[in-house]
Amino acid sequence: MKRIYDSFARQGMMSTLGATLTHVAPGHTTIKAPIRPETCQQQGAAHAGLSFAIGDSAAGYAALTKVPDDQEVVTTEMKIHLLTPAVGHYLIAHGKVLRAGRRLLVVTAEVYVLHGGIEKQVAFLTGSIMPVDLQYTGNGA
Amino acid sequence: MKRIYDSFARQGMMSTLGATLTHVAPGHTTIKAPIRPETCQQQGAAHAGLSFAIGDSAAGYAALTKVPDDQEVVTTEMKIHLLTPAVGHYLIAHGKVLRAGRRLLVVTAEVYVLHGGIEKQVAFLTGSIMPVDLQYTGNGA
Amino acid sequence: MKRIYDSFARQGMMSTLGATLTHVAPGHTTIKAPIRPETCQQQGAAHAGLSFAIGDSAAGYAALTKVPDDQEVVTTEMKIHLLTPAVGHYLIAHGKVLRAGRRLLVVTAEVYVLHGGIEKQVAFLTGSIMPVDLQYTGNGA
Amino acid sequence: MKRIYDSFARQGMMSTLGATLTHVAPGHTTIKAPIRPETCQQQGAAHAGLSFAIGDSAAGYAALTKVPDDQEVVTTEMKIHLLTPAVGHYLIAHGKVLRAGRRLLVVTAEVYVLHGGIEKQVAFLTGSIMPVDLQYTGNGA
Repeated sequence: MKRIYDSFARQGMMSTLGATLTHVAPGHTTIKAPIRPETCQQQGAAHAGLSFAIGDSAAGYAALTKVPDDQEVVTTEMKIHLLTPAVGHYLIAHGKVLRAGRRLLVVTAEVYVLHGGIEKQVAFLTGSIMPVDLQYTGNGA
Repeated sequence: MKRIYDSFARQGMMSTLGATLTHVAPGHTTIKAPIRPETCQQQGAAHAGLSFAIGDSAAGYAALTKVPDDQEVVTTEMKIHLLTPAVGHYLIAHGKVLRAGRRLLVVTAEVYVLHGGIEKQVAFLTGSIMPVDLQYTGNGA
Repeated sequence: MKRIYDSFARQGMMSTLGATLTHVAPGHTTIKAPIRPETCQQQGAAHAGLSFAIGDSAAGYAALTKVPDDQEVVTTEMKIHLLTPAVGHYLIAHGKVLRAGRRLLVVTAEVYVLHGGIEKQVAFLTGSIMPVDLQYTGNGA
Repeated sequence: MKRIYDSFARQGMMSTLGATLTHVAPGHTTIKAPIRPETCQQQGAAHAGLSFAIGDSAAGYAALTKVPDDQEVVTTEMKIHLLTPAVGHYLIAHGKVLRAGRRLLVVTAEVYVLHGGIEKQVAFLTGSIMPVDLQYTGNGA
């Protein structure tokens, strides 16, 4: 599971959002992020982009636990349902693998808001993750 | 169109991502954001959350141009296709309204990466936007 | 629950597909359909359209159990993940309501194939359902 | 393009729906189907399953024009937006390829209703198509 934490640590976006990877198990991960003015929308709730970013990452890392060590993963598509305004202190995203194909994995994530001890689901994601060889991206590295 | 710019200015997330609203017309908006280490994923490309956040906002504001002044809008669901790694200097999202129903608007957004004068599409979003009365959210304000 | 069965009986498409409504409970319904050559694709598996049609209807009727008697429902959008080829004798779709808003309901459906006593999930749907007044559609009635 | 027409002819579902493949070009296809009582929902409009089935097939065959001759294609996920009730005489679906990756193709389809000379868009689909070797499915053939 070390490579999951290492990969997470290299994600500038997760750091910018204050997100932490709090749980990793085969086919499952959990990511937590504070709701701060810097990540809200114009009405004071968490921006959809925050729920999406941690939900997508939780789902993607759940997928990564299922692919060989010489592969990375990329999200090819992801849909998010926003169930209710995310008003509270923290968001918690639980990602999991619904089906692990060799060429494509189907993943889901549930995102909850924590507001004074009460936990409420605010978003639901479903998406497709593709394993790629480690040297895949054109990032110049 | 002033209320569009005012609303955008109140979005902490857009400021955190360095995003600017560069164009507003009836049914259309454009949002631009730099690709910085703070908004990348582990492979050096822009995080899917960046494409999602500016694409979702561009689509949502396109919808807002179509609803009465006493209403705001919320995204109820949004799907993003990630077409290719977003490697470059800037992302540009063009949001537009595909159908403006009174109770629900269907929107799309195309996201492009700018890399040294070359523009390439990296993402495509489709989603549903619901008009809500201005006092809708439970943000305590 | 009578109106659910009455509405189902008026769906020509369900009859064409040989589908039956086998279970209705608040927030839940089940629809079953045989896999016949008439509803297959070119490779001999059930056409995606069959899984979609019964999954969408199961989800929509689950939603209908949650809206007032003077309203109908329409699907505004629906996404289906096809997990594996649907090879077998029957498809069974379980629809349920994830969140019942007054203006929009979020629903899911799981579709399974039955093949000689073995049940396997072949599809997963998530979508949005809008309550409409009974006189809504332009069906000439 | 012969293999496209041959494959279409083997789809029992398309025949059941009365659908015909009316146009095939690289990256594009068009499928037409009548709106009959047998393919309607309870309100007299075409069932969402009809728009989905021909939209999905139009998109899938558009993808098939882009893959090598020794491969077939399968839909891995597809989202449909239903824009307005499909009341009229015919549905016409135009499928096209948005991005043709070697391992995954992103496709879209627009579905229109024809009602006495007037054409109106009723649905919009976006999805993912995976090329597979011809011997892929477990159809017992």
